Amino acid sequence: MKEKISAVVMPAPGRPLEMRRFEAPKAKPGGAVLETIASEVCGTDVHLHHGRLSGVPFPIIPGHVNCGRVVETGGPVADAEGRPILPGAVVTFFDVFGTCGLCWHCLVAKSATRCPRRKVYGITTSADEGLLGGWSESIEILPGVQMLPLPQGIEPEDFMGGGCGLPTGFHAVERAGVALGDTVVVQGSGPVGLNAAIFAQLSGALAVYVVGAPRARLDAARTLGAADTLDISAVVDPTERVGWVRDRTGGRGADVVIEASGNPAALPEGLEMLRDAGRYVVVGQYTDAGDVLINPHRHINRRHATILGCWGYEFTHLYRALQLMARHNGRFRWRELITREYSLADAGRALEDMEKLSVVKAVLRPR
Amino acid sequence: MKEKISAVVMPAPGRPLEMRRFEAPKAKPGGAVLETIASEVCGTDVHLHHGRLSGVPFPIIPGHVNCGRVVETGGPVADAEGRPILPGAVVTFFDVFGTCGLCWHCLVAKSATRCPRRKVYGITTSADEGLLGGWSESIEILPGVQMLPLPQGIEPEDFMGGGCGLPTGFHAVERAGVALGDTVVVQGSGPVGLNAAIFAQLSGALAVYVVGAPRARLDAARTLGAADTLDISAVVDPTERVGWVRDRTGGRGADVVIEASGNPAALPEGLEMLRDAGRYVVVGQYTDAGDVLINPHRHINRRHATILGCWGYEFTHLYRALQLMARHNGRFRWRELITREYSLADAGRALEDMEKLSVVKAVLRPR
Amino acid sequence: MKEKISAVVMPAPGRPLEMRRFEAPKAKPGGAVLETIASEVCGTDVHLHHGRLSGVPFPIIPGHVNCGRVVETGGPVADAEGRPILPGAVVTFFDVFGTCGLCWHCLVAKSATRCPRRKVYGITTSADEGLLGGWSESIEILPGVQMLPLPQGIEPEDFMGGGCGLPTGFHAVERAGVALGDTVVVQGSGPVGLNAAIFAQLSGALAVYVVGAPRARLDAARTLGAADTLDISAVVDPTERVGWVRDRTGGRGADVVIEASGNPAALPEGLEMLRDAGRYVVVGQYTDAGDVLINPHRHINRRHATILGCWGYEFTHLYRALQLMARHNGRFRWRELITREYSLADAGRALEDMEKLSVVKAVLRPR
Amino acid sequence: MKEKISAVVMPAPGRPLEMRRFEAPKAKPGGAVLETIASEVCGTDVHLHHGRLSGVPFPIIPGHVNCGRVVETGGPVADAEGRPILPGAVVTFFDVFGTCGLCWHCLVAKSATRCPRRKVYGITTSADEGLLGGWSESIEILPGVQMLPLPQGIEPEDFMGGGCGLPTGFHAVERAGVALGDTVVVQGSGPVGLNAAIFAQLSGALAVYVVGAPRARLDAARTLGAADTLDISAVVDPTERVGWVRDRTGGRGADVVIEASGNPAALPEGLEMLRDAGRYVVVGQYTDAGDVLINPHRHINRRHATILGCWGYEFTHLYRALQLMARHNGRFRWRELITREYSLADAGRALEDMEKLSVVKAVLRPR
Repeated sequence: MKEKISAVVMPAPGRPLEMRRFEAPKAKPGGAVLETIASEVCGTDVHLHHGRLSGVPFPIIPGHVNCGRVVETGGPVADAEGRPILPGAVVTFFDVFGTCGLCWHCLVAKSATRCPRRKVYGITTSADEGLLGGWSESIEILPGVQMLPLPQGIEPEDFMGGGCGLPTGFHAVERAGVALGDTVVVQGSGPVGLNAAIFAQLSGALAVYVVGAPRARLDAARTLGAADTLDISAVVDPTERVGWVRDRTGGRGADVVIEASGNPAALPEGLEMLRDAGRYVVVGQYTDAGDVLINPHRHINRRHATILGCWGYEFTHLYRALQLMARHNGRFRWRELITREYSLADAGRALEDMEKLSVVKAVLRPR
Repeated sequence: MKEKISAVVMPAPGRPLEMRRFEAPKAKPGGAVLETIASEVCGTDVHLHHGRLSGVPFPIIPGHVNCGRVVETGGPVADAEGRPILPGAVVTFFDVFGTCGLCWHCLVAKSATRCPRRKVYGITTSADEGLLGGWSESIEILPGVQMLPLPQGIEPEDFMGGGCGLPTGFHAVERAGVALGDTVVVQGSGPVGLNAAIFAQLSGALAVYVVGAPRARLDAARTLGAADTLDISAVVDPTERVGWVRDRTGGRGADVVIEASGNPAALPEGLEMLRDAGRYVVVGQYTDAGDVLINPHRHINRRHATILGCWGYEFTHLYRALQLMARHNGRFRWRELITREYSLADAGRALEDMEKLSVVKAVLRPR
Repeated sequence: MKEKISAVVMPAPGRPLEMRRFEAPKAKPGGAVLETIASEVCGTDVHLHHGRLSGVPFPIIPGHVNCGRVVETGGPVADAEGRPILPGAVVTFFDVFGTCGLCWHCLVAKSATRCPRRKVYGITTSADEGLLGGWSESIEILPGVQMLPLPQGIEPEDFMGGGCGLPTGFHAVERAGVALGDTVVVQGSGPVGLNAAIFAQLSGALAVYVVGAPRARLDAARTLGAADTLDISAVVDPTERVGWVRDRTGGRGADVVIEASGNPAALPEGLEMLRDAGRYVVVGQYTDAGDVLINPHRHINRRHATILGCWGYEFTHLYRALQLMARHNGRFRWRELITREYSLADAGRALEDMEKLSVVKAVLRPR
Repeated sequence: MKEKISAVVMPAPGRPLEMRRFEAPKAKPGGAVLETIASEVCGTDVHLHHGRLSGVPFPIIPGHVNCGRVVETGGPVADAEGRPILPGAVVTFFDVFGTCGLCWHCLVAKSATRCPRRKVYGITTSADEGLLGGWSESIEILPGVQMLPLPQGIEPEDFMGGGCGLPTGFHAVERAGVALGDTVVVQGSGPVGLNAAIFAQLSGALAVYVVGAPRARLDAARTLGAADTLDISAVVDPTERVGWVRDRTGGRGADVVIEASGNPAALPEGLEMLRDAGRYVVVGQYTDAGDVLINPHRHINRRHATILGCWGYEFTHLYRALQLMARHNGRFRWRELITREYSLADAGRALEDMEKLSVVKAVLRPR
């Protein structure tokens, strides 16, 4: 292993990224060290750079979803099924750690995604704490962080094509309770929306419609099995878009609508697309993009709507999403969602491309 | 039986009520005729008079929740448990009828409260169709309308003290999934809110807090077992009201919040009162009282909230609510919610009193 | 239309089938008359002939799942989505009718499959009541019976390949709550088991294993996507069969086991195949085939098992199953499950073949 | 604090209890030491002594549910709501610990009660590991074990009157999904059954019927609010007992039946007491008391039954049960379930009394 490790540091919101050199990490007992194979550049990284998340301990090493090769472990370590993880294994890991298992949220409400001690690689971990982000040649796996070996037949490119949208889209579909025969509308055609469209189909949806932009992402949606897509840059009138959905749903609206757009205005529009007694999942509002007017009578009460916020994801979502990827990779070919790969030195450009939506999925190759 | 029947007719929105004379009804086969014992004057009647509901076939005879004595039946009729209903029986009935059992909403979505053929006594039935509202000396029970004999120990005054708030509050609590040990906030202290407070307790809530006005209704809430109440006419700053709830919930917010206020502004306020991953029921927005600004990020997505619109009620809610009333009438004494009784001739004044909120529950005595 | 209609009558248990001639039916108002295109011969028909169902009003015309062409309607009739059904349309229909919508089971428990007034074509309808079974050249559709036009692209052979196993397997999978990533074992490889295997996959199962016999049915299961199959005629030791499942589930057992075998002994065996906190559906015990020993401690309590009886199916299951067939017919090719077609005159032989399990699916062609 | 601590040791199944002297424990960092106020003697202790549980690391110090006073803590420790626990506090604690939070059961299936690393005070902890059972003057609270201070108004006697039946009965009622208006039958009138009867009422049951023995326990059930009780020593014919339930449920059977008897024969009997589409919870079969014959057709499939095994309990059940006790202690007076208190020296006699069922609840007072 090298003695010095290069990593990209985001020193503060709005400040240029910096390449820094760190001491090579050593595996703590129960932990491990990875050589980074690939790291994601996602919308959250753009938001981090714009300072739209609170409580971020800058400077940070971004990159919360990653693949790497195990270089060393701190004694025997195992995956969730009890199988040993040995040096050489190609793994990803659950980026969330530190969930306490002792607090009211963990134990009474069982809403672990809201545990106040929860930390996230690449987001709420400081570069001063170690190599806890993927925009780095090496990543330190702390004790208690869950590693998942990539299943047979899945290469790092496949997994990174899903990226954090994979478990997030999975969680949204689970929360929606997509059932056999449901018609589903997905608002937003970014990685979360596309993965939601995939998992909605895998849950037995009769038809999935994707409403988004730009055209390249909608083309991807249709390749992935969407029954039809609507380009919001071409059809700019929300009423017309609602009509488009109602035309495809017997005039009733969709059984399920999944908001994965990040735009507050999607909310009232999506609720108009929903059938009476339908389910609406809000998974795209990860940062505060402002308020929006809704009509409590028409959108919620009379519609007998079920509206479900969906925050973060849990290990079970990542684990099951990865297993299903191994089964259905021939059908959905996640790796084709990767538009471009970047070197560490080009991380800044990757951020810019993400912001312009000129790529579907951007991946960093630190080595 | 009299040959002519007096009934109060609401000829059109904004027009004065009129007393009219009708032919005495005859029971159709499978139907019945009731002598009206009592009929409710509720917030919906006020909204009807203000023209805030669409699709109302004026002129109508208002009064959707009622008690009466069976005068005659059109051949043998039975209740849902198969017991015969004979002349002399004191009954209420499910005001919703005509649900088709054949359409997509009834059969596929199983959301019978959204069946397009559904009709409601006193609301969507015209006076031209017959005596299909309770502000009348007699009520015609059409074939297929479900009558429920009042259980042992329940008198018409007890049932009318609950009124339509009884099954509506029941439905809201069922929809909320109030569980053993939950802390519940009810926004609104009218009949729906007070009944929601009752059924939340019966569902095992640890504590129920009622936020509303005026003082008389809050006093009633405490008598009914609310752990504490907040007078919104005294505490006018929503932030302070949210703080009041957080002070009582370990800073986390309530497990369940039930909106029963009718005010759109209750929505963002109530969502701030909700704990992460909590459940929020919107049952108070029965008419369109306008739009409201919410923040999709903070109120829904990050909060991992579950927001549940609750429209109408089904027979099962009325049936079970009535059975529980029979068991718990000694504890909750529903009849004490009746502030005043009115003759048919005073129906206009009853409407005015309801509008001013000077009464909790107003009841008409047609005979 | 012919003036006389030939139909096969099962006069009583154990008695030979008879061909009888009936008056051609006339459509009642709201009803219809079909020319029968195909009718199913299923396991229930075998049980009927052995007298293993109680309450059957012999003589009957068997055949509860059918396809036909509308010859005439009694005035305008429509499907559940409100679209008119015209003469010439090729339809199936929901074989269950008469559910009252007024009783405790329908209204309070909402368990319509247990409504005591419920009747079923070909099973609980007497030949004296009319042509209410599919082993006949014509079928009378009574008013209130739900017809479903076959969707675009679905021919009668496709639908009949599913037969009653289609909605029954669908219902079993819905009741199991098969979720994304679940491993599912199906006990039994008859039509219900094979359809359960299909819908489990459509619900997002990671892998479906089918345990059954004979070989031809297991071959069909693998063609339909089963990850693996176990031939119970080759592996006769239940312990070994349980081990086979545990080998494929990390030693833990399956998330879901669906019993579709009809053999009481499948129950304890299947519960041993189930993981702790797994779900077990019993859908194969439609007739009383005897008692079986289970261990309440090991099979239920310590296993934290959820065991779900699954009786009949509802319109929603048939409707959604048919829509999904239209989407996935290219993948599952239901029609290939039909082993043999028979004329009306050969109905007795069809029964014998079903009893010997020498066919997967037997279909009658009355014309 | 004393230098030597007396504790009762169960050296092996069938061997007499022994009083032994141990070194006084010291609080580990994050842990604590309690002076024992009271410890439970429950049915599990009887089973332990008969060797009916596997995997018990004899010798053990029994006593899994306990109250004590904090003598010292290993640095700052807090309860689940983050409030500090200081010396002098009177607490109970969650007897289950060591749940790993890392394995498939914890993370994927979220069935923490089946985590293989889970340990239980007084049952799966050896006396060689320390004072990890309540039949001792002191108890060591290991780091990570959850202490719960008794709420305002609750004294150790109140909590011990509930004992382990409190969270177990709570869990059973939660698992049953007892809903507003349900009729519930509880089979078994021991501590679990009585607590299930309490929590079923708190969940909104319309009526709770308890079927059990002996008379003293049934008297307790009625005092606790059971609508009626059936003495199985007086009515020995199961068919008659089923009839007794059907007489009280309109002939339909109960919505929910909770088995808390420990007798395998209760299973088929209880399933006959259940209405179609009802829910049946098996919580009484904690040890293997043998097999039983059931009829899969009649008991499960045709009944459309939901049968739910219920193993152990989680922290959330104990926490919420304790909070509800604080609210409803005036109504249910749990302490009156304690029939007798014993000194450490009399532990053997307490075991004998439990076995003879001559006490409802037996409590040890170690100091």
